[in-house]
Amino acid sequence: MTALAAIRLGVRVKLLTPDASGPEAAFADVTVADWMDPFVLRAFAEGCDAVTVESEWAPADRLVDVLPESVALWPHPSTLKRIRHKGRQKKALTAVHLPLPPYACCATLDDALAAARQFDYPVVLKRYEGSYDGYGNATCDDAEALADAWMTLAADDGALVEAWVPFECELAVQVARRADGNHVVYPVAYLEQRDHRCHAVVVPADLSAGAAAEAQRIALEAVEAVDSVGITAVELFHLADGRILINELAPRPHNSGHYTIEACHTSQFENHIRAVLGWPLGDPSLRVPAVCMVNVLGHRDGAAEPRGLTDALAMPGAAVHLYGKAASRPRRKMGHVTVTADHPAKARDAAEAAASRIRL
Amino acid sequence: MTALAAIRLGVRVKLLTPDASGPEAAFADVTVADWMDPFVLRAFAEGCDAVTVESEWAPADRLVDVLPESVALWPHPSTLKRIRHKGRQKKALTAVHLPLPPYACCATLDDALAAARQFDYPVVLKRYEGSYDGYGNATCDDAEALADAWMTLAADDGALVEAWVPFECELAVQVARRADGNHVVYPVAYLEQRDHRCHAVVVPADLSAGAAAEAQRIALEAVEAVDSVGITAVELFHLADGRILINELAPRPHNSGHYTIEACHTSQFENHIRAVLGWPLGDPSLRVPAVCMVNVLGHRDGAAEPRGLTDALAMPGAAVHLYGKAASRPRRKMGHVTVTADHPAKARDAAEAAASRIRL
Repeated sequence: MTALAAIRLGVRVKLLTPDASGPEAAFADVTVADWMDPFVLRAFAEGCDAVTVESEWAPADRLVDVLPESVALWPHPSTLKRIRHKGRQKKALTAVHLPLPPYACCATLDDALAAARQFDYPVVLKRYEGSYDGYGNATCDDAEALADAWMTLAADDGALVEAWVPFECELAVQVARRADGNHVVYPVAYLEQRDHRCHAVVVPADLSAGAAAEAQRIALEAVEAVDSVGITAVELFHLADGRILINELAPRPHNSGHYTIEACHTSQFENHIRAVLGWPLGDPSLRVPAVCMVNVLGHRDGAAEPRGLTDALAMPGAAVHLYGKAASRPRRKMGHVTVTADHPAKARDAAEAAASRIRL
Repeated sequence: MTALAAIRLGVRVKLLTPDASGPEAAFADVTVADWMDPFVLRAFAEGCDAVTVESEWAPADRLVDVLPESVALWPHPSTLKRIRHKGRQKKALTAVHLPLPPYACCATLDDALAAARQFDYPVVLKRYEGSYDGYGNATCDDAEALADAWMTLAADDGALVEAWVPFECELAVQVARRADGNHVVYPVAYLEQRDHRCHAVVVPADLSAGAAAEAQRIALEAVEAVDSVGITAVELFHLADGRILINELAPRPHNSGHYTIEACHTSQFENHIRAVLGWPLGDPSLRVPAVCMVNVLGHRDGAAEPRGLTDALAMPGAAVHLYGKAASRPRRKMGHVTVTADHPAKARDAAEAAASRIRL
């Protein structure tokens, strides 16, 4: 989706991926190679004005070593390093007094058990690096469960223990930011997870103006705290008492911002490109009253042959996106459906109906 | 833009073009070869479920000869043949009593002079085939001018003489239609030409509901009259006395429908793909109150290096499209800017301001 946005702007695109998984196959200039290899990275960077990474796991630090000084690289590897490690990420946010659930960086199981006693159970044990979509996290109801989870999730430097917060809902805010600090902040999105995975996003979120402004302020300050350049998604918890706490940051175009393609004057993908190139940022505001995005997840293992696509297309106003991934597997993100409408509930109903038709 | 819409739907795209001009370079599966060559066409069609042409000059008739019966080809060559020749196009529309400016298919200059006397000067002499953007047309104020124009524009079968109609404005309506006759009709667009070339498109057009419905009815009947499948643009004249006459048809995604990308639930490009594949057609209605598209034309001969792009991007709400054409020349269509807004005038001002910043 980032490449599609860049092509529309007349930007020439080169892609580097360690695995040919399908979505890259539509584009002309694709390198499938070991992206840890400095020779691969150097050859790829040849002729680029700017390089960006779409995954916090991409070897941006190795890129720095081979990139000519004239070539921009955003987000900066130091930002990725800070965000990638949940302990470092939280410390960077705490350092500027941003609101987070209580947490402790624990070097040993004893530290973790002490932290859990302090927070009270349940607690969430989180792997420092490599977790996503619920993988790498464990909600622990007692010391025994925590000890078990520690065995699988702790790394050499330990793991993170977080108090379980009784949130009312999850929110997300996209922030596009340039190297010079210039930025735009997207509307607040309501985020619905199912099985630790994003199911639906509805915008505008059903919040008071004050709460929405607070969510946007926190999101912007978080992005500034880690000095992220490009688009960053800030996931938030909204508590029953009105407090808004930061869940986590993703330094890239994010599932919670796919709705921006149809609903905003400038999509998250286009503003990522603009930010990375140092171009003026586009208007992040909604051009429609309301929007809902629902993910299309895989149902089975095997070649991705969508069934029910024409049923989904028959739903009025459904904008269907299929990513062209070659293989499906249960719960893999294979596409999404966006519907814009006058009211969030109307958009939600139509998007759910269309997305549920597609099976692959 | 059609390929971008197809990729979003997970459709695999192959392109065949007789010349590498730039826009095709972003895509993976591109053949640059003589598309009149049956071997080229046969090799290209290999593995396709459906084939479409984006130009009424593409050799669709030759494709028919080499395509397996199982492969859909839309629009059908017989439709393209009817639309491509202005005499045949007008006769097909007249046959179903659709309103056109008075015209005469003239085999000889004497026929043309007789028709002009009947219509009264000025008349417009039109080449039967191969005219676009004002090339191939001549407005003639007297017999001498008509005789001069005849020398350059008449073909073996003559040329077309059309009465000059004092239209108030030009309109355009997109119609997406499937092989089974199922169709959707887009809103009526106000079309502003400068130097015989589309300059700006504003939607909704400033028309009474009755006039808009009449324009849509005429557009649909015109598309049915030539049995066009895919997207077809119908250009219309709106006269001071309220009459709406057909100017001409274009059996493909058309400049007058570029606004649909940002403004409609389903773009002209996506509905072209859907129609050609026999999929359900998408909602053509506006998802915003108003929209304006302004073309970005070339200013000079040479390599296409856009200047002022960042100035254009700095205009709030401007969606910039650059086509990636390698070479610019004066008045060549190099891109466009779309702005959606609450009011047509607001969209127009912003789109004009942004488009005027880009020079290439």
